[in-house]
Amino acid sequence: MVKIFITGGTFDKSYDYINGKLFFEKTHLPEMIKRSKCRLDIEIETILMKDSLDFKSEDIHKIVNSCKNEKSNQIIITHGTDTMTNTAKLIADLNLSNKTIILTGAMIPYAFGSSSDGFFNLGCALSFVQTLKPGVYITMHGQYFEWNKVKKNKKIGVFETKK
Amino acid sequence: MVKIFITGGTFDKSYDYINGKLFFEKTHLPEMIKRSKCRLDIEIETILMKDSLDFKSEDIHKIVNSCKNEKSNQIIITHGTDTMTNTAKLIADLNLSNKTIILTGAMIPYAFGSSSDGFFNLGCALSFVQTLKPGVYITMHGQYFEWNKVKKNKKIGVFETKK
Amino acid sequence: MVKIFITGGTFDKSYDYINGKLFFEKTHLPEMIKRSKCRLDIEIETILMKDSLDFKSEDIHKIVNSCKNEKSNQIIITHGTDTMTNTAKLIADLNLSNKTIILTGAMIPYAFGSSSDGFFNLGCALSFVQTLKPGVYITMHGQYFEWNKVKKNKKIGVFETKK
Amino acid sequence: MVKIFITGGTFDKSYDYINGKLFFEKTHLPEMIKRSKCRLDIEIETILMKDSLDFKSEDIHKIVNSCKNEKSNQIIITHGTDTMTNTAKLIADLNLSNKTIILTGAMIPYAFGSSSDGFFNLGCALSFVQTLKPGVYITMHGQYFEWNKVKKNKKIGVFETKK
Repeated sequence: MVKIFITGGTFDKSYDYINGKLFFEKTHLPEMIKRSKCRLDIEIETILMKDSLDFKSEDIHKIVNSCKNEKSNQIIITHGTDTMTNTAKLIADLNLSNKTIILTGAMIPYAFGSSSDGFFNLGCALSFVQTLKPGVYITMHGQYFEWNKVKKNKKIGVFETKK
Repeated sequence: MVKIFITGGTFDKSYDYINGKLFFEKTHLPEMIKRSKCRLDIEIETILMKDSLDFKSEDIHKIVNSCKNEKSNQIIITHGTDTMTNTAKLIADLNLSNKTIILTGAMIPYAFGSSSDGFFNLGCALSFVQTLKPGVYITMHGQYFEWNKVKKNKKIGVFETKK
Repeated sequence: MVKIFITGGTFDKSYDYINGKLFFEKTHLPEMIKRSKCRLDIEIETILMKDSLDFKSEDIHKIVNSCKNEKSNQIIITHGTDTMTNTAKLIADLNLSNKTIILTGAMIPYAFGSSSDGFFNLGCALSFVQTLKPGVYITMHGQYFEWNKVKKNKKIGVFETKK
Repeated sequence: MVKIFITGGTFDKSYDYINGKLFFEKTHLPEMIKRSKCRLDIEIETILMKDSLDFKSEDIHKIVNSCKNEKSNQIIITHGTDTMTNTAKLIADLNLSNKTIILTGAMIPYAFGSSSDGFFNLGCALSFVQTLKPGVYITMHGQYFEWNKVKKNKKIGVFETKK
């Protein structure tokens, strides 16, 4: 069974037409899974619905704890891109030696239709979680990175290998 | 470098509004790669643009030969779902011991927008090609199958493990 | 109140991924009305869900009769483009002197996402039904045509003024 | 000939994935016109690309002047919804007695795919500009309003008749 933890992030943002701002209305994961015709055994759990820049320490604690307590060895976390490497590090500190944990997100919200990378990234996360050996990884842009070998280049909006 | 061979299939079909039938207008791969923000080194080559039910023996020969002659060890083939397992078998017969070859397709054309599984499947194919050991595989529905352990259940439109 | 009669046509076709053919799964009208944020008083009634090339005389009779019996003076009919002018003629023969009746359709199914003209055509139909004087009209391509001054040019898939 | 003046607004906003904010990248009008298969004679001119809350008096002056100097009697203006009624009033003050001028916009950006009302609104604007008698109007939600009989209810994001 693959467990997917939802924490919010650009991935799940919607557009609020009353005030013209982005917000969290609902998660798109169930709809995405249905559309993908995915036949894996998947369980989805929403931990948070927040921009990762707004995470407080108790929010991150919740995510880390969910990984610790999860019985499945295949875990995906949807997460805002801005602090994804930070959360990955805190999960890695747990030394969960049997678990493959993949963090992913989106540069453009799934709700924004045919420009979003989110559906592709979900395909990557579900594939890597089945094939990578236990560890904590980030997948974006079709690539996977070990948690301690990646940083987000915020200037160009790209995850890249940390030198 | 990942080589992507395009052969057509539902994946790349478009709607012809003159006669109301599906046809091949152009491949959507370059647009999909751009949208995915994929940063892998990718080379795309169109071998065919056909429904796999319309493949003649020389068409299949072209695909098999392209795999044989390709210098990259990471190959993805977009392919109609109806004869995908057949082409996979013929490629496997080559015994290309260093190459990871992934065939994928779509149940619903990419051009049909927010109902298509194609973009997700591309994410899966690009992930599996990086992580599976050499061999010939099919990926659909978030799963991967070794070429000789899968069949398409045409009644329900699903790839499943061959008993 | 605006009455919308649904009869099928390309407008409402979906893609059947089991057999790769187009079919009628459900009407998209309620979803389209919601998306448009339309605040007109609208009533939707499904008369048929058919390709207009498959209409039998009793099907056309049903459509004509629905127009005759409808109490609203503002009627929109979604209809396959191939026989739209024929049905328009039969409705015009009723000489319903108080009713503005607009037939519209789509060249590309609404279900096919960002290539479909259907949502635009619905906006046109709802606008013309409020502003044109009683009569029977076809709207396609942002234009409106009186029922007896239009033909479909099937070679290029375009409605044009009948010379 | 129908003249379309572009001034920006939610209609044409895109998502900037570097900073997560909305911005103006390009107008979507040409793409929308192509998709609509519209066969009207249309000329598009970009006057501004701004959120209407950011308009300065010279910006509004430009729009008003463009209407005054335009030779076509059928004019559409895409405009941010927040100050649309204000600009409509200033255009109406010109007393252009031969011109039908329609202001429209979108509650959700066209770039946000299958949730946007923009494509529908464009269909309405192009229809009303052909059928309403000279005057200045706003069209949103499938309705048209004379410029002095409408206000935006910002609390619920809806244009409604001014009491």
